Amino acid sequence: MNFDEELKRRVEKTEEVIRRFLPAEEGFSGHIKEAMNYSMNAGGKRLRPILMMESYRMFGGSHAVVEPFMAAIEMIHTHSLVHDDLPAIDGDEYRRGKRTTHAVYGEAMGVLCGDGLLNYAYETALKGFEYPDNREHIMLALSVLARKTGVDGMLGGQSVDVENEKDGRIKIEKDMLDYIYLHKTAALLEAPLMIGAILAGTDRGAITCMEQIGRKMGLAFQIRDDILDVTSTTEVLGKPVFSDEKNQKTTYVTLLGVEGAREEVHRLTENALRLLDALEGEKAFLTELISHLAYRDK
Amino acid sequence: MNFDEELKRRVEKTEEVIRRFLPAEEGFSGHIKEAMNYSMNAGGKRLRPILMMESYRMFGGSHAVVEPFMAAIEMIHTHSLVHDDLPAIDGDEYRRGKRTTHAVYGEAMGVLCGDGLLNYAYETALKGFEYPDNREHIMLALSVLARKTGVDGMLGGQSVDVENEKDGRIKIEKDMLDYIYLHKTAALLEAPLMIGAILAGTDRGAITCMEQIGRKMGLAFQIRDDILDVTSTTEVLGKPVFSDEKNQKTTYVTLLGVEGAREEVHRLTENALRLLDALEGEKAFLTELISHLAYRDK
Repeated sequence: MNFDEELKRRVEKTEEVIRRFLPAEEGFSGHIKEAMNYSMNAGGKRLRPILMMESYRMFGGSHAVVEPFMAAIEMIHTHSLVHDDLPAIDGDEYRRGKRTTHAVYGEAMGVLCGDGLLNYAYETALKGFEYPDNREHIMLALSVLARKTGVDGMLGGQSVDVENEKDGRIKIEKDMLDYIYLHKTAALLEAPLMIGAILAGTDRGAITCMEQIGRKMGLAFQIRDDILDVTSTTEVLGKPVFSDEKNQKTTYVTLLGVEGAREEVHRLTENALRLLDALEGEKAFLTELISHLAYRDK
Repeated sequence: MNFDEELKRRVEKTEEVIRRFLPAEEGFSGHIKEAMNYSMNAGGKRLRPILMMESYRMFGGSHAVVEPFMAAIEMIHTHSLVHDDLPAIDGDEYRRGKRTTHAVYGEAMGVLCGDGLLNYAYETALKGFEYPDNREHIMLALSVLARKTGVDGMLGGQSVDVENEKDGRIKIEKDMLDYIYLHKTAALLEAPLMIGAILAGTDRGAITCMEQIGRKMGLAFQIRDDILDVTSTTEVLGKPVFSDEKNQKTTYVTLLGVEGAREEVHRLTENALRLLDALEGEKAFLTELISHLAYRDK
C-alpha cells in the first residue's frame, strides 16, 4: 500500500463530502456563513471524518448515511479551533499559515461563527434521519457525538486546559493532565471511530473497542505534540517551538522527560494496534494511519 | 384567572424541570459546569420553556417527554446571553443586576461555558429518545430546535445585529431590521411553540400556525423593547435607557416613531391572538401571556 496516495484519495473524498454540507452564502446572514466556510476551508487534515469513514467501512458500512456525520464532526472540530484562537483563550492570529477566523472577520464574528459551526454540526448530523437507515443507529450516533463534544468530552478538557495555561500558577498532576488530554484531544478521535462502527450496525463490544483505540491513539497523538514542541524546529512544525516551556505548561515531557514520553507514545500505539488487530474487517489503512500519527514529524 | 399567580406557578414548575437537567458539578470539569449552572440560575423569566409547555398542553400533551426540550431551549437561550455579554460582542458586566458569567469566571470560561450550554442543550434534548414516545415527533422537534437556533435562525439574526451595532456606520433598512428581529428574537419564540405542538402529535397546519404566532409575538416583543428604551426609566427597566440612541442603532422607533411603533406592536399582537383564537384547546393563559408581553412595562 502506498500510504501517502491512499491518504490523499481519502482527503479528496472527504473534501467533496464536506463541501456538499456547507451552508450557501446567501441572504442577510451570508456574512457569518462566509466566515464558517472560510474556517472550514482553511486547510485541515480532515483526520476525524477520515477515521469515521474507515471505521464505517471496516464494519461493512457502504451507505451515504455516514456523510452528514463526517461533515458534522469536522464542523465541531473547526468550531473548537475558531474559539481556541480567540483573544479570550489562546489569542492566535494565524493557523496553518492562514489568518484565523477572528483575525479576518473580527472578534464578535469569531465568537458567533464558532457557535454557528457547533450548531450547524447538529443541523447537519440530524440530516442522517433523512437517509433510509436504521434509526436506532442514528439516535445512538447523535448521542455519542454530543457527549464526546460536550463538558464530559472535548469542551470539558478544554475548560481544564485553560487552567493549565495560567502561566503554571496551578500545579498540574499526572491525573489532571491525563484528564485534559483524554478529553481535549482523545474524545474527538473516539467519537468518529465509534460513530462509524455504530452506523455500520456493529455490536456493543466492537464499539467499545473502537472507543479504546481512539482513547489510546488520542493520548499518543497529544504526547507526540509535547515531544515535537521540544525536538522539532519552527520551520518543520510551521508554528513556534518551545511554546509549552514559554507558557510554563505541564506536559508529558516535563513529567517524564523526552525519552519517557517517547516510550509512552510507543506503548499506547502498540496497545491501540493490538486492539485493532483483534477486530475483523479491512483495516490496513487505519493501521498505517495510527502509526503514522504517533510517529509524525509535524 | 389570576395571571400573576398562574405565571408564578408555571415559573416554579419550569425551575424544577430545569434543575433536574443541569449538570452535576463534579470531577475535573466541575468548574465549567459550575459556570453553566451559575448562568442558568441567574434569574431568567423562563419564557421559552413556559411557551413550550403551554403549547404542548394546549394540543393535549401530558407526558414528561417535553421536559428535556424545555430545559434544552432555556440552555440555548442562556448560551446566547452568555456570549452576547462577552467583551467581543456587547461587553456587559451585569445582567439582571447580577455579574454576568465572564465577569465572574473570566473571559475564556465565558466562551467555553456558552459553548458548553449550547452543546448540553443537544445532549439534553436527545434524552427525549429515552422516553416512551413517538420517535418521529422527537426527530422533528430536534430538527426545529437546531434550525431555529442556527445561522438560519437566532445565530443568523445575532450575526446581522452585530453589523447594526457598528455605531450606525451601516444604514439599516426596514427589511434588514425585520430580518434581525425575526431571527435574533422571534426564532427562539417560534421554536418552543412549534416543539410543544410537534411533541403533542398535532398536524402540520397547527404547527405552522404556532410558528406564525411566535413570529408575530417575537416581532412585537422586540419592538416593545425599542419603545421601552425611549419611554421608560433606568429604575423601572433595570438597565440604561436611551442605549439605542447612544449606540446609534436603527430601531422601529427611529423608523416609525414611538406612536408608529406602538401601532405596530398592537397590530402584530392582534394578529397573533386572532391566529391563536382559531385553534382548539385550553389557551386562556397563553392568550394572556401574549398580551402581557406586548404591553409590558419592563
